[in-house]
Amino acid sequence: MQKPKRVYLDHAATTPVRKEVLDVMLPLFSEQFGNPSSFYQTGQEAQRLLTQARQTVADCIHADPREIFFTSCGTESDNWAIKGTAEALKKKGRHIITSQIEHHAVLHTCQTLEKQGFDVTWLPVDTNGLVDPEAVRQAIRPDTILVSIMMANNEIGTIEPVETIGSICREQKILFHTDAVQAAGSVPIDVRTLGADMISFSAHKLYGPKGVGALYVRKGVRLPNLLDGGAQENNRRGGTENVAGIVGFAHAFKLAVSEMPVTSQRLTMMRNDFIKSVMAAIPDTRLNGHPVQRLPNNVNFSFKYIEGESILLMLDHFGYECSSGSACTSGSLDPSHVLLGIGLPHEIAHGSLRVTLGRETEAEDLSRMVGDLSKIVARLRELSPLYPADRQQTDLNQHV
Amino acid sequence: MQKPKRVYLDHAATTPVRKEVLDVMLPLFSEQFGNPSSFYQTGQEAQRLLTQARQTVADCIHADPREIFFTSCGTESDNWAIKGTAEALKKKGRHIITSQIEHHAVLHTCQTLEKQGFDVTWLPVDTNGLVDPEAVRQAIRPDTILVSIMMANNEIGTIEPVETIGSICREQKILFHTDAVQAAGSVPIDVRTLGADMISFSAHKLYGPKGVGALYVRKGVRLPNLLDGGAQENNRRGGTENVAGIVGFAHAFKLAVSEMPVTSQRLTMMRNDFIKSVMAAIPDTRLNGHPVQRLPNNVNFSFKYIEGESILLMLDHFGYECSSGSACTSGSLDPSHVLLGIGLPHEIAHGSLRVTLGRETEAEDLSRMVGDLSKIVARLRELSPLYPADRQQTDLNQHV
Repeated sequence: MQKPKRVYLDHAATTPVRKEVLDVMLPLFSEQFGNPSSFYQTGQEAQRLLTQARQTVADCIHADPREIFFTSCGTESDNWAIKGTAEALKKKGRHIITSQIEHHAVLHTCQTLEKQGFDVTWLPVDTNGLVDPEAVRQAIRPDTILVSIMMANNEIGTIEPVETIGSICREQKILFHTDAVQAAGSVPIDVRTLGADMISFSAHKLYGPKGVGALYVRKGVRLPNLLDGGAQENNRRGGTENVAGIVGFAHAFKLAVSEMPVTSQRLTMMRNDFIKSVMAAIPDTRLNGHPVQRLPNNVNFSFKYIEGESILLMLDHFGYECSSGSACTSGSLDPSHVLLGIGLPHEIAHGSLRVTLGRETEAEDLSRMVGDLSKIVARLRELSPLYPADRQQTDLNQHV
Repeated sequence: MQKPKRVYLDHAATTPVRKEVLDVMLPLFSEQFGNPSSFYQTGQEAQRLLTQARQTVADCIHADPREIFFTSCGTESDNWAIKGTAEALKKKGRHIITSQIEHHAVLHTCQTLEKQGFDVTWLPVDTNGLVDPEAVRQAIRPDTILVSIMMANNEIGTIEPVETIGSICREQKILFHTDAVQAAGSVPIDVRTLGADMISFSAHKLYGPKGVGALYVRKGVRLPNLLDGGAQENNRRGGTENVAGIVGFAHAFKLAVSEMPVTSQRLTMMRNDFIKSVMAAIPDTRLNGHPVQRLPNNVNFSFKYIEGESILLMLDHFGYECSSGSACTSGSLDPSHVLLGIGLPHEIAHGSLRVTLGRETEAEDLSRMVGDLSKIVARLRELSPLYPADRQQTDLNQHV
């Protein structure tokens, strides 16, 4: 039997390193391998590349290069922003505002702070996954030191009203952090209008390498180090710089930003066609996340009466690589906190499927997938004791 | 004019990625790029590689793979071990013992804890850079929660008596952390006899890539997370795993360990020849660090009457890439805390040169360097107002 073509549709989990990106990284492993802190030629060349990469990343978000600090991942950036602010301002107050649908890097960090005596307000979201900026305003107290709301949700793709939240925070003089790990490279980011004091980034979500991230820290924001050590990153993050990774990240980010208008339009059209076809082909399907205000590449469905894991298994068998939610939480049997956050009951949250498109995704793969997915869902419903007998009959007639 | 051949002699700062290592990393950027937390084939393949890399690193130090946690660098490992222990045990006590010649990743981390109310004993070292294990024993108090002494010093190469210190800590039931960043790959490490509870590693010091490290955490040691987030690293270090980097690290470590007997002997002989030749050719030269109990590739000299930075500049001009101490502290005008720690006066500490050999170092490059170095030192002394006129005459006759 012929092996099915592998179709990777989990670009929210990670992306392949682009060829152009790998090309700029390659010489930096074994040839131009100097330590940027070193005095001599090989070291200074690495330093020059690092400076250039910092400028590139700064340009991508209209920041000053002195506001860009390279880290090892989005998670480190989130931890640094939140724990650092908590440490710096704990004498001013111990109240933090965040949402119920943040990535675990924010969620678990805030929970750790709760154990240390901080008070966290977990804002609810509406059925589309939107945080209400007015709820942020109302949650602010005299002891509030930080608001952390993600730019776009990694599971359901909803783009949050971060500019409005940012202006409220600025007006109330509260620091505002946003996790832009999933948004960066997909939606424009301009720190001049965003009103964020700290922004987290990750390279491997935008066709850069794994193991690199950045934190934007607005000039004037005091943030104690998370990693103490050498004088790297202007004395604010010790550790020999991952030069190849950083250079790759910067190049990937630059490419993503310059191609964004075209890529974004293409992906949005493909995504909308796919959503429309699946909703038409498979009854009792719910689109999770905001219908319009969502990442161009994100699709998230709930199929009533069945389990997400079974869909994934069968899709994998057919060659489609998708996820039931965040890759960071797989292995857990709990339903997604994001899907529960938008009000789905447990049994429906369990039947969810995230399909995230990428640069190489082809329309014909998606249209083929609609057919395969219909068959899979119909078959699983046929086996499901939860599926009403009368509906089953109809669906079987319709799809098999 | 012909450009001089570049001779890289700063392997303590960083090493090039070995060809064999880059070869195993390459397919993991753009082809086998899956997220190890993902359910489907591409993800599970990444997971398999990760598991294999963890086993490899564990085997290198005779540990259990469940005791190996991948991090982004040696600095992160040090921060995690020390800050994590402080957090876990602060109710038991707030006293930490370390040495005056630790890497800045340990030194600055301990200073941060001092600001938070911890009490740090900074043990002195002898003129060879050795920590006295008996001094460790005597420094232990009822509120001591951690001893952190490096395995080998990054500037002067002295190998510390960590096994003896480890057994004292074990006997006194105090957690023992050792920074093995500079030692790993150069000297054997066996956790079964070492008596360490936590050990820090870095890939780029042993011909692996920058941006990857590991922390060994002995089974049963409770260590709160430094990076909260997803379920990666057995729920103890969030962030999508840097698969390519980790696989490269493991392969580099394995190669280093298997070749250690041969490489170590070869480097030690070359090192000893070089030391002997330089000491014979250049008067008023001091070898810093232990004469025998030192890393096979480490040489550290002080040349009386002159500045280290000037030597480096001129060596760079001649094509030799060396350092005056730790790369992580370059840019600072302060003399090395390590050289001050072994009792050198400021003006002599300023005239130091670290030459660290590597796999590709050739004996003829070193013997050529002896001649060039003699000329450089003689020339700089000639220009130095500190150099006594009578000695100057002798040296000029001798070397120019």
